[in-house]
Amino acid sequence: MMDAFASNWFTETCPLFPGQRFSLQVQEVLYSGRSDHQDILVFQSKTYGRVLVLDGVIQCTERDEFAYQEMMAHLPLTSHPLPEDVLIVGGGDGGVLREVVKHPEVKRVTLCEIDKEVTRVAKLHLPWMTTAIDHDKVTVVNAEGSTFLREKQHSYDVIITDGSDPIGPAKSLFEENYYELLKQALKPGGLICQQTESPWLFPHLLRNLGTICRQIYPEVRLAVASMPTYPCGEMGYLLCSLHTKPLNEPQRVLTEVQQQEMGLRFYTPEMHKAVFTLPSFAHKIFYGSNDSEEKPN
Amino acid sequence: MMDAFASNWFTETCPLFPGQRFSLQVQEVLYSGRSDHQDILVFQSKTYGRVLVLDGVIQCTERDEFAYQEMMAHLPLTSHPLPEDVLIVGGGDGGVLREVVKHPEVKRVTLCEIDKEVTRVAKLHLPWMTTAIDHDKVTVVNAEGSTFLREKQHSYDVIITDGSDPIGPAKSLFEENYYELLKQALKPGGLICQQTESPWLFPHLLRNLGTICRQIYPEVRLAVASMPTYPCGEMGYLLCSLHTKPLNEPQRVLTEVQQQEMGLRFYTPEMHKAVFTLPSFAHKIFYGSNDSEEKPN
Repeated sequence: MMDAFASNWFTETCPLFPGQRFSLQVQEVLYSGRSDHQDILVFQSKTYGRVLVLDGVIQCTERDEFAYQEMMAHLPLTSHPLPEDVLIVGGGDGGVLREVVKHPEVKRVTLCEIDKEVTRVAKLHLPWMTTAIDHDKVTVVNAEGSTFLREKQHSYDVIITDGSDPIGPAKSLFEENYYELLKQALKPGGLICQQTESPWLFPHLLRNLGTICRQIYPEVRLAVASMPTYPCGEMGYLLCSLHTKPLNEPQRVLTEVQQQEMGLRFYTPEMHKAVFTLPSFAHKIFYGSNDSEEKPN
Repeated sequence: MMDAFASNWFTETCPLFPGQRFSLQVQEVLYSGRSDHQDILVFQSKTYGRVLVLDGVIQCTERDEFAYQEMMAHLPLTSHPLPEDVLIVGGGDGGVLREVVKHPEVKRVTLCEIDKEVTRVAKLHLPWMTTAIDHDKVTVVNAEGSTFLREKQHSYDVIITDGSDPIGPAKSLFEENYYELLKQALKPGGLICQQTESPWLFPHLLRNLGTICRQIYPEVRLAVASMPTYPCGEMGYLLCSLHTKPLNEPQRVLTEVQQQEMGLRFYTPEMHKAVFTLPSFAHKIFYGSNDSEEKPN
């Protein structure tokens, strides 16, 4: 891991996005170790606050994490008329959970994280992320997502998959069988949300996910929103539901007072609508077209 | 400049965004020199095609430049009912010009680029960028933007400022006096478009621009859209008009046939509407609010 810190710069290295690199200047390494599942690193950066890195890939920074967590939580939760039972697969850093518990409709949340070390380290070094871990509504289970889901039938209104990239421990969370398991674990009218990377970088992944999910769910949409410290500066959010109302409009519109009470800095009902509008190259990738020129490069 | 190429990686260095770095893997350096105004570099990258760099900052890559050029050209041109006379300040690489001439309404375009070396190098090494430079509609003037504008009165329907970052040669293009000059050079009902960086990185710049421009123009709006190889993966587009119709809806809606004929891969009329919707932190920065917590970090 020492190579990554040449001259006090941490440089992200991942075979998923070759030919490009993002680096953050390091002030102090706060934690570096290996769990049963992955390398875990936390450092204080010069201009992005504290940074969590898993297997060499930036998971969140103090400066921009709210954008990701708010979209991962509020896009699906406002797309359901009454989200009482929520499951988060992954998300051991607590960030998505922190946003989910803000909804008074939510009665019970289960966090299913394979690696309990992530949560332990986050509690210690990223405490603003883990504020909801000990909340009354919350149950934490340390298990592998697919294994956990196999036991579940019609249990959740919303399932959020907050895994890492489609490589290593999280690879199975992008395969067809996983979307079948999720469907079976949903209550009637339920819906799922999953991070799906940027269409700039993963056109084939997104094309496949679109095709797979449209065979399983009646309503499937892709949103894309700004996220500076992820590759290409954005993140894709896949939403699939068993209800047939359009997912690009919130079923529950948060008032300005609610947004303020929830301390939102990224999500608004207007953003909810806007982020489902894709550039034409990305629309063709995800929704398909007869045009053979579907890749931006 | 050699430091930037350690181990065949080009690393962007700019004091405007400290603590973060973006790098592209280099296959071959095609051109490296210094003009009267700046360092100019072109290289073949491993995964982003050819790359143009001015004073150490990436200006465009073959893979994603269409996103920036399409927004810089089609956002303002579709916001005007009949854009016959167009001025581009900067934009010597020809990319915005290539998009502007696609509009049959446009009768005359002037490209005012201070550095003719940029165009010469682009013609040689980035020929798909400069396809419109010798077009019948086009006049190229090598002059400084503000100086050129001082001579102009009510001459243009649309003025697009495609300058580099607010430092060095392009600094004056972000100051109050420049927006007065632009206004005076516009025909009645005219409008301007300028690149304005990301709200994540330049909150104070954007707050100032919003305040200045609202004093000069009746209609002022900020759009933000994905641009992977710019810092934070996005670019801001400032639009100000002398007409009072909302700029977040196109005055001329391009049909699907028109979009296809123009070879668009990013801009759509739906994207036009979507990109003016800002995350709440960015909305507060640009449009102001009583909330003191206006910065994301």
